[in-house]
Amino acid sequence: MEHTYAVIMAGGGGTRLWPVSRKNQPKQLFPLLGEETLFQSTVARLEILFPPERILVVTVAEQAREMREQVPSIPVENYLIEPAPRGTASVVGLAAAILHQRDPLALMAILPSDHHIRNRDLFHYLMRAAVDVAKAGYLVTLGIAPTYPSTAYGYIQQGTPLDGKFNYPVYEVKRFKEKPDEKTAQKLLRTGDHSWNSGMFVWSTKRILSEFTRQMPELDAALKRIAAAGSPERLSVIEALWPTLKVETIDYGIMENAERVAVLPASGLGWSDVGSWDSLFEVLLPDMNGNISINSQHLALDTHNTLVYGEGNERLIVTIGIDDMVIVDTGDVLLVCRSDQSQQVRDVVAHLKKHRQERYL
Amino acid sequence: MEHTYAVIMAGGGGTRLWPVSRKNQPKQLFPLLGEETLFQSTVARLEILFPPERILVVTVAEQAREMREQVPSIPVENYLIEPAPRGTASVVGLAAAILHQRDPLALMAILPSDHHIRNRDLFHYLMRAAVDVAKAGYLVTLGIAPTYPSTAYGYIQQGTPLDGKFNYPVYEVKRFKEKPDEKTAQKLLRTGDHSWNSGMFVWSTKRILSEFTRQMPELDAALKRIAAAGSPERLSVIEALWPTLKVETIDYGIMENAERVAVLPASGLGWSDVGSWDSLFEVLLPDMNGNISINSQHLALDTHNTLVYGEGNERLIVTIGIDDMVIVDTGDVLLVCRSDQSQQVRDVVAHLKKHRQERYL
Repeated sequence: MEHTYAVIMAGGGGTRLWPVSRKNQPKQLFPLLGEETLFQSTVARLEILFPPERILVVTVAEQAREMREQVPSIPVENYLIEPAPRGTASVVGLAAAILHQRDPLALMAILPSDHHIRNRDLFHYLMRAAVDVAKAGYLVTLGIAPTYPSTAYGYIQQGTPLDGKFNYPVYEVKRFKEKPDEKTAQKLLRTGDHSWNSGMFVWSTKRILSEFTRQMPELDAALKRIAAAGSPERLSVIEALWPTLKVETIDYGIMENAERVAVLPASGLGWSDVGSWDSLFEVLLPDMNGNISINSQHLALDTHNTLVYGEGNERLIVTIGIDDMVIVDTGDVLLVCRSDQSQQVRDVVAHLKKHRQERYL
Repeated sequence: MEHTYAVIMAGGGGTRLWPVSRKNQPKQLFPLLGEETLFQSTVARLEILFPPERILVVTVAEQAREMREQVPSIPVENYLIEPAPRGTASVVGLAAAILHQRDPLALMAILPSDHHIRNRDLFHYLMRAAVDVAKAGYLVTLGIAPTYPSTAYGYIQQGTPLDGKFNYPVYEVKRFKEKPDEKTAQKLLRTGDHSWNSGMFVWSTKRILSEFTRQMPELDAALKRIAAAGSPERLSVIEALWPTLKVETIDYGIMENAERVAVLPASGLGWSDVGSWDSLFEVLLPDMNGNISINSQHLALDTHNTLVYGEGNERLIVTIGIDDMVIVDTGDVLLVCRSDQSQQVRDVVAHLKKHRQERYL
């Protein structure tokens, strides 16, 4: 794994996990699932493959402070600060340009800070396999074998298997598909050749930067100026250029029309983007009634498939005769929601923003 | 309304309204429905007919203190203190014996402290009518025309109309029926000649005491000793005798086998015993989605027929995609319950008692 780096992306907040995820407490920095935060778990998962000097974090200034406290092992110069989030294309570009200047032979894995992976061993195995494929000049995406017709993820259709002696089945990518509607999702699931786009990628900085040059020339020019700037000036160069950048995702800006893209479709990884409250039913182990109780004293009568998230054991939460619910109890907000409508939490956050109820955001 | 007295019974706690109703905060002493407590509303309703000197309260010592603060108008000597609740037969007997000693011509209305009555004018009209019937020597019960096959109330079957020039239709009672099962309740509803037993009665002290003499001679003897004791000794006489009394209800101990019992079946009274959380849907006016929000800031998305009871406007309660629920949010307890299972709250209280979780009782 020489010349190999991990880049953790941590920009957004995760509004669908409101009211636990807040403006000043984004989901990756909160111990949502237990004692560790999602960010801490992500680093712990990566530190088995990468020494801390080769783990980079791209984030905004407010989050960096908290991250440094949560994970002191990563050197301060490995924190790349965005003045404001401009989409994942800029994040990947910034990390690639700076890494490439440090090490022209660099291979980089790019990973979200707020995902959960149950099967760490398989993850490590896949990362090594992906690095091998990336060394052969491919842009590698980690695909997740879909287990239900999700409308919350983009899909990747696999084409023919790649030639080459790789330690894991790997395919060229035929097509990226944006988040589908329910009916399309069901169709994609039945084909058997579609994976969820996990947002985890591996490639050499040289290859990905060549795609920026070809597909996003304006961003590429900005990245070259940032890389050329020495360490002390770099921050002010970034601050000057960042607001001029187009907001764009790496998927739409680069991947959909990139050359030599490969996918490793993973099954059994136990992956979740912890994207909404109902996703916790996949991440955690429910009891025999299908209930999950986090950080709360829960007395359940005739209650099934219900998640109760509390603020500690002092408060008693009693449920009677309910099914398929999510109950989130924080100091100033109580959320009671049908599990299959927990995506709507985002609408609540939008409503509160519109009505300037800042205190609850 | 000369020689006419109102006796308010306030013994129990109302465990089905937990977690708002607590050992140290019984439901009648809490502003459950708004600014007034149920006890205050009960007194206010009666003060239109009875001067405060002719309103008596039978209760336990702890509650009396709080009641005196909530309603200073009732003279302290009108509070009759039970050492401990022994059922409504003892309550009625105690009040009747003491009243009879004060005024041998007394007529008494006996009323629970924790009911809600929307139509006050009709209530006053009914009370006057009942007093007329009681003056003619009847034990008068107020019946409530049933609006659904409730299994939570006892039923009264009416017989032939009474002779006499009364201002309201009044019938002799054919039979008292204890709380029925669902199927029997449906049958009773269809007959058209059954009323709910509201627990409100009117009679002369002379008539009811004669029934005690005939049907409950042991209690009668105790009552005679209590009445004979002068004011200063009375308390210690009650304290000595009370533990020896059989626990019995007035319905079972007296009414079921009493002579000359009449019923006034009321419809349109807007009566509720506020006996469980779902009863609040009858008492309060829901919004156009059927929701009721009490003392809370409730943001309802796709929510119907749901009661939200909070601890104030500081906390935001958000519901998404739920129907027919009761949500009660107090400082140390959160209850989320299907409306039609809110009777089960009593089981929760029993469970907490058994497991000695006194702090939540």
